[in-house]
Amino acid sequence: MYTIFSEEGRVAIVLSLEEGRNPSPKPSLDSLLALTGDDLDQVNQAILRRMESRVDLIPKLAGHIIAGGGKRIRPMLTLAATKLCGYAGQRHILLAACVEFIHTATLLHDDVVDESDLRRGNATANVLWGNEASVLVGDFLISRAFQIMVEDGSLEILRILANASAVIAEGEVLQLLTANDTATSEDTYMEVITAKTAALFSAACRIGAVVADRPKAEAEALDSFGRNLGIAFQLVDDALDYSARQATLGKSIGDDFKEGKITLPVVLAYRRGDATERAFWERTLARLEQVPEDLATALSLMERHGTLRDTIERARHYGAIARDALAFFPPGPVADALSETIDFCIHRAY
Amino acid sequence: MYTIFSEEGRVAIVLSLEEGRNPSPKPSLDSLLALTGDDLDQVNQAILRRMESRVDLIPKLAGHIIAGGGKRIRPMLTLAATKLCGYAGQRHILLAACVEFIHTATLLHDDVVDESDLRRGNATANVLWGNEASVLVGDFLISRAFQIMVEDGSLEILRILANASAVIAEGEVLQLLTANDTATSEDTYMEVITAKTAALFSAACRIGAVVADRPKAEAEALDSFGRNLGIAFQLVDDALDYSARQATLGKSIGDDFKEGKITLPVVLAYRRGDATERAFWERTLARLEQVPEDLATALSLMERHGTLRDTIERARHYGAIARDALAFFPPGPVADALSETIDFCIHRAY
Repeated sequence: MYTIFSEEGRVAIVLSLEEGRNPSPKPSLDSLLALTGDDLDQVNQAILRRMESRVDLIPKLAGHIIAGGGKRIRPMLTLAATKLCGYAGQRHILLAACVEFIHTATLLHDDVVDESDLRRGNATANVLWGNEASVLVGDFLISRAFQIMVEDGSLEILRILANASAVIAEGEVLQLLTANDTATSEDTYMEVITAKTAALFSAACRIGAVVADRPKAEAEALDSFGRNLGIAFQLVDDALDYSARQATLGKSIGDDFKEGKITLPVVLAYRRGDATERAFWERTLARLEQVPEDLATALSLMERHGTLRDTIERARHYGAIARDALAFFPPGPVADALSETIDFCIHRAY
Repeated sequence: MYTIFSEEGRVAIVLSLEEGRNPSPKPSLDSLLALTGDDLDQVNQAILRRMESRVDLIPKLAGHIIAGGGKRIRPMLTLAATKLCGYAGQRHILLAACVEFIHTATLLHDDVVDESDLRRGNATANVLWGNEASVLVGDFLISRAFQIMVEDGSLEILRILANASAVIAEGEVLQLLTANDTATSEDTYMEVITAKTAALFSAACRIGAVVADRPKAEAEALDSFGRNLGIAFQLVDDALDYSARQATLGKSIGDDFKEGKITLPVVLAYRRGDATERAFWERTLARLEQVPEDLATALSLMERHGTLRDTIERARHYGAIARDALAFFPPGPVADALSETIDFCIHRAY
């Protein structure tokens, strides 16, 4: 782990996620993409086709965010999960598109909630077309996802994704309530990310077993894989918001800090800090009274208490559970690619 | 029709909706309520039960708007439609709750979009808890509606309400695009209200036939009844926004005018006006450059061209179609109550 300084002071800690591990090829999504790429092309075409509307602004705005450089990790998980279950039909294409529509709707509503200006280096839809349009196009996409599921005809898949959708909304509300609350517990933080992020990861994976008509135990194994992967993914995301690696993502560093969002690196730093440090977190995150040097101070406190390192440690724990869930399935290239996806989510430095 | 003057000048036109008709008892929702009241109590209980969440803010915020004095006209339509179809089971209770959840979600998102401060005389949820919470609780309610529909288990009902939900979002986006556009045509206005309002009225009615397992022709008759009733309802709503009767609703007069919303009374006044009048509408509604006297001027222009009267005339036309759709069903107290609902929607002066 090393630290970058700018003229303003320390601005970022570079997390070395490989610390203490043997050097190995950097894990990536390449294997997953190689296995699902043909299907993913079809998913992308389905997305373009199904976001059409006689109201031009809808595909324009939705297309802006959908084409905005996302990794499509959630629909790829659906595609890989169906492959892992030996499915040979075509239903997974549209269902993977549904998963991406639900994800996109939450991004659109998140950007309104966060008043974000940038997502992956691009201006957000709410900046370009206003909050109103972002809210309504999000509503359209979620409704369109349900239309497609109805067309698919599986009540079980409708149940899984309707549940995920309700849980995501609950998680987002809970996150809103914890914002600026430095006393937020690690338990509550875990509840937030399990709901807002992991619920869709688990649903995306679980429907793979349902489409393939596999036994309940396989559906549950995929659910567990997805849920634990999603938790690990979000933990690392929250650590990266304080890491220099973010800069290459087009995201500015310290977005969560500026908003007073309470993520695990902060939860731990607050708990482990002394009275002076807690006063610092309360001023900067609860009262949002910030001066430019505060981010550097925040980073040094996180470094002092090892909270970024430990956030990644927590992610490793969930990654390990995800890997064991996967062990339920026979080994092979799909299981390997999903296993590498866990490593990627934990070690990502893109 | 007569006009009310205040110190600022003319402030409202009192629409006499009975003009040219024989005096008769004022139509109300009383008969509909008498027929569906017991069921509606159960619907209200189901709403309270089903909006529960481990995140307290969700039932609190949702409860604020759901308890905020709405007439429950949409769920009452579902209840009456099932009764008209001779249904004797219990499924209609939760389905009527779904309809109200979808409606409530659109209200929550509308208030964010319109930046409204008041709804039915109460502070809106976005003022009390912020736009963010309103967006997210709206998302929760729509997801919860789909969860309940999945539990009910009818793919046909899921299809009807998923379609309605997508069409509503399209209509809201289209309305956003017509805001401040004085050149909006009557056709486009009709497209907006058919989508944003009539789609849910028609779906609420149609599902009555589906629950009762009645033939397609009855589903279509109820769909037509609901759609035309919804159009009439919205036309009158848009006229009432320029009418003194609104004051008793806790709504201020001229909200649409202040926002530059282009409704039929304006569409017609713009088309029928001369160059000076069009310049007035462009200044006040397109550029939103308004002084306090402008609302009075707007009202006098609408009066000169009879645009409120003609908006109500258009509503009567759709009301007549709704009545003929209803004629498909055997006469009786339910058909009578639904027929009176048409009259109520056109003549309402509450």
